[in-house]
Amino acid sequence: MLTGLSAFPLTPFTPDGSPDEAGFVRLVERLAAAGVDSIGALGSTGSYAYLRADERARLTRLAVEAAAGVPVMVGVGAVATRDVLAHVDAAQEAGAAAVLLAPVSYQPLTLDEVLGLYADVSAASSIPVTVYDNPATTRFAFTDELTAAIARLPHVTAVKIPGVPADEEAATARVARLRALLPAHVTVGVSGDASAATGLLAGCDAWFSVVAGVLPGPALALTRAARAGDHEAVRAEEERLQPLLALFARHGGSLRVVAALAEHLGLVGPDCLPRPIRGLDLAARAEVADVADRFRPHG
Amino acid sequence: MLTGLSAFPLTPFTPDGSPDEAGFVRLVERLAAAGVDSIGALGSTGSYAYLRADERARLTRLAVEAAAGVPVMVGVGAVATRDVLAHVDAAQEAGAAAVLLAPVSYQPLTLDEVLGLYADVSAASSIPVTVYDNPATTRFAFTDELTAAIARLPHVTAVKIPGVPADEEAATARVARLRALLPAHVTVGVSGDASAATGLLAGCDAWFSVVAGVLPGPALALTRAARAGDHEAVRAEEERLQPLLALFARHGGSLRVVAALAEHLGLVGPDCLPRPIRGLDLAARAEVADVADRFRPHG
Repeated sequence: MLTGLSAFPLTPFTPDGSPDEAGFVRLVERLAAAGVDSIGALGSTGSYAYLRADERARLTRLAVEAAAGVPVMVGVGAVATRDVLAHVDAAQEAGAAAVLLAPVSYQPLTLDEVLGLYADVSAASSIPVTVYDNPATTRFAFTDELTAAIARLPHVTAVKIPGVPADEEAATARVARLRALLPAHVTVGVSGDASAATGLLAGCDAWFSVVAGVLPGPALALTRAARAGDHEAVRAEEERLQPLLALFARHGGSLRVVAALAEHLGLVGPDCLPRPIRGLDLAARAEVADVADRFRPHG
Repeated sequence: MLTGLSAFPLTPFTPDGSPDEAGFVRLVERLAAAGVDSIGALGSTGSYAYLRADERARLTRLAVEAAAGVPVMVGVGAVATRDVLAHVDAAQEAGAAAVLLAPVSYQPLTLDEVLGLYADVSAASSIPVTVYDNPATTRFAFTDELTAAIARLPHVTAVKIPGVPADEEAATARVARLRALLPAHVTVGVSGDASAATGLLAGCDAWFSVVAGVLPGPALALTRAARAGDHEAVRAEEERLQPLLALFARHGGSLRVVAALAEHLGLVGPDCLPRPIRGLDLAARAEVADVADRFRPHG
């Protein structure tokens, strides 16, 4: 299941600060219709950390319904283990195909504490668990030995890595080294959209994609080219995404940029990010609009 | 109000993962009886980030009651602004004397977003707001210009800084430089217990103290010596605390050490930290026990 393109939609918020359910459903329906392989609902791009427990449960149910058979993986991270376990329960009840767990923390965690967290979730989950390594938001540094220990736990079936080296040879070596430490059934997915092309060419099984949450067409084209082993086509599709990826790099990550892009394309309402996060300023929005218009025909 | 010694108690948790209210009340009563100047409930040491909204409201009410007139400042930080505002409302209703706000985040925040967060809280609060600069947990780096801009907002009355340089002259210069940027009514409190003596001698108005949450006696002795301007006595009291401060440095901060200390002294039940945080291992606990026994007569 967790192979190919996994698209991560935004969770848009309304001006009163609560999630815009109708807007969220439209985004998920659009991704399912585009033919993505799975949907990563309530990921970092889906602002899971800004949602209350009841909202997370409800949005998960809505995502599963709107995905119309496309598998939905749902983010269950939280600072307290008891809250993570409650989110896992809710995800299972809602029909999620898998859960995605990052070691969110307030007090910095030790390696053993993070292993303990995954062990607690592994014991409580009856659906697949994806390890979510996202140092930009969790500020936690996985070691390969920790990832390997977690991957041996029951129900753990995938690892979402934050990126690969830009050099192709180094990327291939990186993915091979990690794979050698993991049980054979555990898949490796690349995130950090700037790493997608290199990661897929280096042998990653999946692309966990922020771009795909708003522009599924170009992301599917890249993923299909990789699946077909067409190196040149992969790099051509990456080249098309380059102006957008450059904006991610310039504006502190992908979230504020994809939110502005989705707003510009009319996919969500204005000012869709949860406070205290604020949208891009007007100058940056003009850059986003300029880039967005190149993708309009492609959808 | 936010001058002198502000003691930060643990919030102990029960084996089922919920807060141990009776244990928490005992800790707060003990601090009030010891004569601390204020109590910092649900600070980082009080594990605010691991508590649910209803628990935070209830523990705040219990703290105010148990403090028997000693002012209670309460932590209101959360990832989402709407949750922070709900905690502020609950703190006011519970009779808290002030709120303590750190820029907790999932997505790294910009300087302007953090200023916006404080502006939203300032507009909603009718009680004093303390700015909580704690990079170890928030991973957010305040600039002095940001602190100064926040300090000009209505209701902001204190800044909790994470420490001062170890060198006395440098510490005095640091505190003077910050003070020069702040309105005259805004107090500066030092935290990071290893910085307490130097911070108070350098002119900080308050010590926001983790040590004082478990060992109010020695912390009060240090604070009173500083208030009396008795440089030598301050350094003597600091020297007494040194073995404990050394354990903080060795075990990744104060939380796990003070929890083990409180457990060893029988102030809280065993294994009192919220998962995924785990207590110290047995070797480290032996070190804590050794240090603790030096403080027994002092209480």
